[in-house]
Amino acid sequence: MAEVYLDNYAATPVLPEVLEAMLPYYRDDYGNPSSLHGWGDRAREAVEGARERVASLIGADPEEIVFTSGGTEANNSAVKGIAWAARRKGNRVVVSATEHFSVLNAANTLEKFGFEVATVGVDEHGVVDPEEVADAVTGETVLVSVMAANGEIGTVQPIREIAAAVRKKGVPFHTDAVAAAGYIPLDVGELGVDALSMASDRLNGPKGAGALWVRKGLRVMPLMDGGVQEGGRRGGTENVPGIVGMGKAAELAAAGLPDRAARLSAMRDSLIERLPAAIPRLNLTGHPTERLPWNASFVVEFIEGEGMLLFLDQSGIAVSSGSACTSRALKGSHVLAACGIPAERAQGSLLFSFGLDNRQEDVDYVLEVLPPIVERLRKMSPLYDKFLKSGGGQDSDL
Amino acid sequence: MAEVYLDNYAATPVLPEVLEAMLPYYRDDYGNPSSLHGWGDRAREAVEGARERVASLIGADPEEIVFTSGGTEANNSAVKGIAWAARRKGNRVVVSATEHFSVLNAANTLEKFGFEVATVGVDEHGVVDPEEVADAVTGETVLVSVMAANGEIGTVQPIREIAAAVRKKGVPFHTDAVAAAGYIPLDVGELGVDALSMASDRLNGPKGAGALWVRKGLRVMPLMDGGVQEGGRRGGTENVPGIVGMGKAAELAAAGLPDRAARLSAMRDSLIERLPAAIPRLNLTGHPTERLPWNASFVVEFIEGEGMLLFLDQSGIAVSSGSACTSRALKGSHVLAACGIPAERAQGSLLFSFGLDNRQEDVDYVLEVLPPIVERLRKMSPLYDKFLKSGGGQDSDL
Repeated sequence: MAEVYLDNYAATPVLPEVLEAMLPYYRDDYGNPSSLHGWGDRAREAVEGARERVASLIGADPEEIVFTSGGTEANNSAVKGIAWAARRKGNRVVVSATEHFSVLNAANTLEKFGFEVATVGVDEHGVVDPEEVADAVTGETVLVSVMAANGEIGTVQPIREIAAAVRKKGVPFHTDAVAAAGYIPLDVGELGVDALSMASDRLNGPKGAGALWVRKGLRVMPLMDGGVQEGGRRGGTENVPGIVGMGKAAELAAAGLPDRAARLSAMRDSLIERLPAAIPRLNLTGHPTERLPWNASFVVEFIEGEGMLLFLDQSGIAVSSGSACTSRALKGSHVLAACGIPAERAQGSLLFSFGLDNRQEDVDYVLEVLPPIVERLRKMSPLYDKFLKSGGGQDSDL
Repeated sequence: MAEVYLDNYAATPVLPEVLEAMLPYYRDDYGNPSSLHGWGDRAREAVEGARERVASLIGADPEEIVFTSGGTEANNSAVKGIAWAARRKGNRVVVSATEHFSVLNAANTLEKFGFEVATVGVDEHGVVDPEEVADAVTGETVLVSVMAANGEIGTVQPIREIAAAVRKKGVPFHTDAVAAAGYIPLDVGELGVDALSMASDRLNGPKGAGALWVRKGLRVMPLMDGGVQEGGRRGGTENVPGIVGMGKAAELAAAGLPDRAARLSAMRDSLIERLPAAIPRLNLTGHPTERLPWNASFVVEFIEGEGMLLFLDQSGIAVSSGSACTSRALKGSHVLAACGIPAERAQGSLLFSFGLDNRQEDVDYVLEVLPPIVERLRKMSPLYDKFLKSGGGQDSDL
C-alpha cells in the first residue's frame, strides 16, 4: 500500500543532516553547557552555534534568542511572561480569535490572575484587520499577540501592518510564527515585532526544541525558574542535541526557503485546483492567495472529518482534521468558527499539510483515493440525506 | 591525556540502548501522538510504553505521570502548579533551604503572586528535620516541597518521615527526586508523597525530557497551556524520541538499581576514604552515610573551586564546584551555606559525581592529579598564607 504522509503540520520527519548534527551530543559531547570544563565548553559552543543559526532565520540578534522545549513553551513564555512582567502597568492582553491554543489558553490562564483578554475577530478568510487590533488596545494593554500565519487554514496575516498599528500605541507585540517560520520570509526588524515564537519540529528538526525571540529591553518573567541558563531567561539544563538539531534545521530552512516554498506551493496549488473539481461541495478554507506554501485546507460538506481521516488512513494517507492538538479533543475548530463557518460544515474539515518528502504523485493519489471515500461517507450521512430530500442542487448553508 | 568525566550530576552520556530506542522516532515513526492515523498511533504507543516504564521506576500508576521537558519543568510545574491551583485555600508554601534552584526560584516567583514562602533549615549534614517541617505548616499552607536527596552534597532526606509529618497536617507534599531517582529505591506509595519530579538526563537518558508524577486527585494548574496532550495537564507536542529515551533509561535504571548503586558507592567510598588522607584540610560535605551512591563532595580549605576545576580540566578530569546550574553564576553555594559552612570555606567546594562509565582507576587518577594541584593553588592563596602566619596547625574555621 502507498504511504502518503500529508500531515506535516502535526509532525515532520527529521532531516538526515539534522539527525547527523545531533548525534555527537548524545554519547560523546554530552556535557552540560554550564560546566567549567572541556565537556561543558563543547556543549556550550554547540548551543551558541545553534543560537546564531536560529537567529539568522529571522534576522535577529543571537543574544535575543531563548531556547525553549517547543513552540508551546515559546508561546506560553511570551504571553504569560510579558504580561506578568508588566502586571503593574496594566492588566489587558489582546489576541486574535484564530491563535493556537498555546496562545489562547495562556491568555485564559492570565484571566485567572486578574487580566482581561480582548479577542479580535477575523474575516471569512481568517485575516485580522490591523485597525481592529489597534482599536482593541487600551491604556491598560500590556501585550498584543497575533500569529504570523495560521497552520490550520494557512492564512498569512498582515503582520507588518498589525505590528505598526500596535507600535503606534506603544504596546509590545508578539507573533506566533510556529507555522510560518522557514516557509515565508520573516525578518523581525522589517516586521517591527517585539517577540516571535518558533518550533523546531515544524522545520524538520527534532521535537522538544523551540525558540522565543524577544527584542532587547522587553521584560519577560521566566516561565521556567531555575539556574541562570539562557541568560537567566529560562532555567533548566539545555536540551543540547535538540537545540543543535533546531539550529541545523533553521540553517537548512533559511538556505532553502525560496526553493522549498516554490515546491510546496506547487503541490498545494495543484490540490487546491483539482480537489474541488473532483468532489462536489468541497470548499477551500483560509485565504485564497495569502496562504502558507504547505497548507491546503478544506471543508467537505455533509460529513465528518474523523470519518475521512480513518478511511484515508486505511489507504495509507495521513492528514488532519483541524489541528493536531485538537484531533483527540474532537471539538469543533475555533479557527473555522472564527471564519464564520457553521459548526456542521466545520465538522468536515480536512487539512493537507505538505512537507519536504512529498511529491506531485501524492496529490494524484489523494485525487484517486478521496472522492470515493467522500461518496461512501455521504451515503451514510443523515445530513446528506436531508440535503438531497430538500432539493439538492441549490446552495445550502445547512 | 586521560579523560576522566566525574561530573555526572551535571550531565550523563546517553546509553547506547537508550539512543537505539530513540532513533526510529526521528525519521521513521515521526508522527504526532495526537494524530488520528498510523503515524500518530505508533507515536502514541511509544509514549504510552515510556509512561509505563517511568511509572514503574517509582511504583506509580502510569496515568499519573506527566512528561515534561526536564527536571526543572517538573519542579516548576509542581511548585507553581500546585500552589496556583490551591490559591483560594491558602497562600503559603514550605520548602527546605537546600532545594534545587528550580524549586527555590519557583517559590520566589510565587511570592510575586502573593504567596509567602517558609524555608526550613538543615543540620550540618544537610538533613531536614521532619518535626521542623511540620511546625512550619500553618492553616494557610498549600504545599510542602522537600527534595528526596541533594545532588550537590549527596544527602538523602528522611522523605518517608517528612511525608508522614506533612500528611498529618493534610497538606500536599512534593519531592524533587531528580538527583535520587534510579539511584536509591523510591516507591511513591511507600514514601507517602503526593508529587515527585524526575529528569531523564540524570539517568543516562537524553536531555530535554523529564516527568512529574502527581497523585490522582491533586490539582495542578498547567504551566504549559495549549492542546490536550498529557490528559490536559501539559500542552505541547510530546517530545516522542526524548520520552522514549527516558522510558528506556528508566527501565534500565530500575532493573540495574542495586548493581549500579553498589558499583557507584564503591568508587564514592574509595574517594571519600582516600582523598582526605592525601590532602590536608579537605572535608567531606553532606551526610557521612545517608548519601547518594554517586556523590562525593568536599570543601578544600584556602582555595577556590574554580581554580581546581580549571587545573583538573587541564589534566582531563571533569568535576563541578557546587551545582552545574550555578557554575557559571559563580555564586557561593546556598546548600553549603545552609549546612553552616562559612562562605570562605564553601568557595573550595568540589563535587565528584560518578557515573556508569567510571572505573576504580578514575579514583586513582584523581588521587594522583589533585593533591599537587591543591598544593600549587594554596601557594598562590592569600588565605593560606594568612593561615600559615596565624600558626598553621590549629583548627581554623577561617
